[in-house]
Amino acid sequence: MIIIIKKEHDEKQLNNLIGWVKKQGLEVDLSEGSHSSVLGLIGDTSKIDIDLVRSLDIVESVKRIQEPFKLANRKFHPEDTIVDVSGVKVGGDNFTIIAGPCSVESEKQIIGIAEAVKKSGAKLLRGGAFKPRTSPYSFQGLRETGLELLLKAKAETGLPIVTEIMSVRHIDLFKDVDLIQIGARDMQNYELLKEVGKTKKPVLLKRGFANTIEEWLMSAEYIMSEGSKDVILCERGIRTFEPYTRNTLDLSAAPVLKELTHLPLIVDPSHASGLARLVKPLSLASVGAGADGLMIEVHNDPPHALCDGAQSVRPEQFDDIAKSVNNMLPICGKKQIL
Amino acid sequence: MIIIIKKEHDEKQLNNLIGWVKKQGLEVDLSEGSHSSVLGLIGDTSKIDIDLVRSLDIVESVKRIQEPFKLANRKFHPEDTIVDVSGVKVGGDNFTIIAGPCSVESEKQIIGIAEAVKKSGAKLLRGGAFKPRTSPYSFQGLRETGLELLLKAKAETGLPIVTEIMSVRHIDLFKDVDLIQIGARDMQNYELLKEVGKTKKPVLLKRGFANTIEEWLMSAEYIMSEGSKDVILCERGIRTFEPYTRNTLDLSAAPVLKELTHLPLIVDPSHASGLARLVKPLSLASVGAGADGLMIEVHNDPPHALCDGAQSVRPEQFDDIAKSVNNMLPICGKKQIL
Amino acid sequence: MIIIIKKEHDEKQLNNLIGWVKKQGLEVDLSEGSHSSVLGLIGDTSKIDIDLVRSLDIVESVKRIQEPFKLANRKFHPEDTIVDVSGVKVGGDNFTIIAGPCSVESEKQIIGIAEAVKKSGAKLLRGGAFKPRTSPYSFQGLRETGLELLLKAKAETGLPIVTEIMSVRHIDLFKDVDLIQIGARDMQNYELLKEVGKTKKPVLLKRGFANTIEEWLMSAEYIMSEGSKDVILCERGIRTFEPYTRNTLDLSAAPVLKELTHLPLIVDPSHASGLARLVKPLSLASVGAGADGLMIEVHNDPPHALCDGAQSVRPEQFDDIAKSVNNMLPICGKKQIL
Amino acid sequence: MIIIIKKEHDEKQLNNLIGWVKKQGLEVDLSEGSHSSVLGLIGDTSKIDIDLVRSLDIVESVKRIQEPFKLANRKFHPEDTIVDVSGVKVGGDNFTIIAGPCSVESEKQIIGIAEAVKKSGAKLLRGGAFKPRTSPYSFQGLRETGLELLLKAKAETGLPIVTEIMSVRHIDLFKDVDLIQIGARDMQNYELLKEVGKTKKPVLLKRGFANTIEEWLMSAEYIMSEGSKDVILCERGIRTFEPYTRNTLDLSAAPVLKELTHLPLIVDPSHASGLARLVKPLSLASVGAGADGLMIEVHNDPPHALCDGAQSVRPEQFDDIAKSVNNMLPICGKKQIL
Repeated sequence: MIIIIKKEHDEKQLNNLIGWVKKQGLEVDLSEGSHSSVLGLIGDTSKIDIDLVRSLDIVESVKRIQEPFKLANRKFHPEDTIVDVSGVKVGGDNFTIIAGPCSVESEKQIIGIAEAVKKSGAKLLRGGAFKPRTSPYSFQGLRETGLELLLKAKAETGLPIVTEIMSVRHIDLFKDVDLIQIGARDMQNYELLKEVGKTKKPVLLKRGFANTIEEWLMSAEYIMSEGSKDVILCERGIRTFEPYTRNTLDLSAAPVLKELTHLPLIVDPSHASGLARLVKPLSLASVGAGADGLMIEVHNDPPHALCDGAQSVRPEQFDDIAKSVNNMLPICGKKQIL
Repeated sequence: MIIIIKKEHDEKQLNNLIGWVKKQGLEVDLSEGSHSSVLGLIGDTSKIDIDLVRSLDIVESVKRIQEPFKLANRKFHPEDTIVDVSGVKVGGDNFTIIAGPCSVESEKQIIGIAEAVKKSGAKLLRGGAFKPRTSPYSFQGLRETGLELLLKAKAETGLPIVTEIMSVRHIDLFKDVDLIQIGARDMQNYELLKEVGKTKKPVLLKRGFANTIEEWLMSAEYIMSEGSKDVILCERGIRTFEPYTRNTLDLSAAPVLKELTHLPLIVDPSHASGLARLVKPLSLASVGAGADGLMIEVHNDPPHALCDGAQSVRPEQFDDIAKSVNNMLPICGKKQIL
Repeated sequence: MIIIIKKEHDEKQLNNLIGWVKKQGLEVDLSEGSHSSVLGLIGDTSKIDIDLVRSLDIVESVKRIQEPFKLANRKFHPEDTIVDVSGVKVGGDNFTIIAGPCSVESEKQIIGIAEAVKKSGAKLLRGGAFKPRTSPYSFQGLRETGLELLLKAKAETGLPIVTEIMSVRHIDLFKDVDLIQIGARDMQNYELLKEVGKTKKPVLLKRGFANTIEEWLMSAEYIMSEGSKDVILCERGIRTFEPYTRNTLDLSAAPVLKELTHLPLIVDPSHASGLARLVKPLSLASVGAGADGLMIEVHNDPPHALCDGAQSVRPEQFDDIAKSVNNMLPICGKKQIL
Repeated sequence: MIIIIKKEHDEKQLNNLIGWVKKQGLEVDLSEGSHSSVLGLIGDTSKIDIDLVRSLDIVESVKRIQEPFKLANRKFHPEDTIVDVSGVKVGGDNFTIIAGPCSVESEKQIIGIAEAVKKSGAKLLRGGAFKPRTSPYSFQGLRETGLELLLKAKAETGLPIVTEIMSVRHIDLFKDVDLIQIGARDMQNYELLKEVGKTKKPVLLKRGFANTIEEWLMSAEYIMSEGSKDVILCERGIRTFEPYTRNTLDLSAAPVLKELTHLPLIVDPSHASGLARLVKPLSLASVGAGADGLMIEVHNDPPHALCDGAQSVRPEQFDDIAKSVNNMLPICGKKQIL
């Protein structure tokens, strides 16, 4: 961290600041030029509150050099993390497709879709049981029953399951879920992040629709600081002024994350676009950008899906997408899945 | 709701759609022109899932005419709601200032600030006990102890208190809090909204930093649908591309909300700008725009505040702001506060 | 400018960089700490290309301390600039209202509106002759004829005129225009900025709808670097995700600009919101935020206006707005206008 | 276009509206339900000013069914347009790479880079002569001399050239330029669009960094409405809240444009990200998303480039990118380039 001190400053205040920094366990490099003074803070500055420093009278401005995240930082963990989700590997040279319906609707539906997507190459089954909906009057998911149906589908097909948690009160209900999803709206629900971290289960952390990459990694850091190591990031589009797609898929995030963190990245083209016919091109684009996997909504009867039908592809479309993705994988340094 | 049917459509599918709409308890107006057909849905369409309708093969597009919120809608409740927070009125021709530190730090600090802001015209005391921080390594608030100190300050000064809740697990701890704040990051934490709604206590609902006005009112609707009537909205800036201010205060939201809803609106210029020296002009601007009150961060020693010092004003600055605001109130149709 | 050098760097490359900086006429302060080296550049760094420096192999990161604008910078020109538009003063403790129709439509229309707004307190007449429209099929303004009609209205009422220029080819046509407007879409049309700057006429520079405050001031700098001193800034809303208003009026820009620049600021609530009924509250908010004036669209027959009828107020509404604004001015440190 | 009439409306006003619509050459379908009335406008509604209709007293809201662009619309021109740029085909199953330096700096530089990129598979040479720079104090390009050097490089290598125009005054200077580029900042510089359209030369139209896809197509429509048929669109990133990359590349735009328009799309990953090391993954992602080509900044000595060095790749990196792209093309339905 570099602190630029105002040209005219009180010497005593500067000494106070230097003393305070040293008390935090950091070393200080002072450069007094003829026109300005610069303090360089050396050591682990992740615990320094940058806003507090910025607000001091003698401070002109502050610049962070180190990223504020540590456990998620590639600098301190250069090798790719490979998350093991009940035997399914995510990260490294693996490419993993998660597929399934937006909402679990019935035993027949979820098992039918699970069998279909497994045949086409999906390795994990997704399905919403607790559903965050903008309106209190919309379908809120089958909740506990939905979880039970997912577990039945897992028993039937062997596919580990992924589903979203919405409240710390439901932690116990999720004990048999293989990969717990934190949804975009909960990315900064810090109490939930901490409690999910304590379970030590693999977590799929979706990016908030208006959060920066740094904030996203700080949320991963919340989970990891509770002892969990297995966080998978999921890019699902950010909010912009463009109305044609529901969100704007930020694929630049893929190579940026590969630099900043060792955690794997899954891309969700279904929620990002909100349009089933965009899922294939955005899936291929995600492979090109360097993603470690995809999360795709698949429904046997999209027009009658209880929610988000507009963005679901049919099983036969999913099969076509998986085949094209498979062809691209070797060009992008990944093992084929079919 | 207006549903525009594609020119070439299957007659059977159209009849299915009409039948389904009628089953939802709505009437249907069908206009078959030579070039297109239009269905008008009459009745309470707030329960219709617009995305589902949009995804049907025969549908060209859909337009909602009615707003999807009901309890918060001014159409069904034309008079201003005046929320009573332990005797303090918010809304109507009242103008209410909430003031206090970002975080509760000590008994001396919170009581000192409470006495100062009360003298200057504040009617409610704010102070953070549970603090949502981007970094797990930043100060997270005094938590339970912070609540106790707030209650002491209330006992000392008579000011009702406002503080943020971050988890459904803390509901019981908040039983003596006069006005429960839902923070921006939790605006779409639906499980929390529902449980807070069940307490029937007054709620201060901050706008999510990337949420539309309609989404904000839908979150108010979540609280109100649990039986609570007393929701106060709080505009605190939205995320834009402009880096100079922490967020961009959206004052257009004030007159827009006056049209759409009967709920009162408080503006928080401290969090919106993140800069203490912007608090006065933005406070006066908020009065001009038609807000029902202000929430201002006040600290006796901003450079040493444990968080958000950069945006806090000193008690004497707060006193000056309150006096200028007071002068403007009659021009804007509000009763004076001093 | 502070340049942070990578820990492991080539000494020769560092010397090359220092030499290059000195050749640009700057002094260099080198601080070599045990963990990093920091170069402080002293002198006028506005000509240093920050992207170029950032791209050097040995550079970790760069931070600008000085603002990149000079002529527009309050640091080098502490007193408010008061622009004289053919006798009408803008800036300082003056508050100036510009009013008139979106488009000039006919002699009768423009003279009628000019007389009405003059009576209510407007000091400058606006009216579009060349109109930037999203569609090539929409009305493009009366163009040359529109300018002639504006000049007739000026002759009739004595109000100096403001109108938008869209092409360097039209510079000569604007020789009798008192205040030349650069529209939002042309804020970074640098060739136009330079040529308008050469005329030495007062310029009203609208903020681009997706431009930062710094970029806006850099565009003012383009005009000023050609010798023009008289630039008036105009905030007219920025593009955000909120769909209810056409744009989001950024009133934080008012106090920020007062810090950064000595140039006056006018606010345009009509274009910002796109809704006539929001013009009054946003006008009062602008006064509160510290604006030096308003630009308001007024039309005698808004529903039949050839463009932008939805955002125009009627003359009697304008009169009411001007009266309320007038009452607020003394509270905000401005001379009354009525 | 669907116009929803308010429940309580003046019958005479409704008849006036219907009469006015018919005068514009359109047919009207009136559906009077028990709760609302809906007007369906049939015919070419692209000339109807939607804001004007929306502002009428009797109108509740308006919804456009047809897109407001015609010449650029795939509905009226179902086959892909293949633009011929001096013999180089862009669009259809062709994949075209444009490469070259941000700025032309010298004869040796531009010819050297041209030869290198040609060998690696580029079919068109880019190079900036007139440079839009945020600061008036930054290098503004070699201007006329830059154009001459580009023409020399064309003579030497046979590569047709692409370069940006910034002013209508320069139209004549561009008579030998093969593909005229309209930059992002000029996307809504309508006078420039019209004059460039009149030249009938192929145009590369960059998306404004805060413009919607619809606005972008309306700008293409401006060029096409002057008789030009050969417009190539260029996505180069949009402005969002994410600070890590200069802009956020919107690859969803690729499949969306394939639906809406018949015009070809080139993606510029260099400007979008501003970071050379992101160019390869974003190039592969663009192929996956369905782009018709790439525009890549290549420089022989990026750290010393006079502008935008940070985003330029070296010739050997470009060669590697082109080879990987080439491998992906057959999977995405394009002819290979090597």
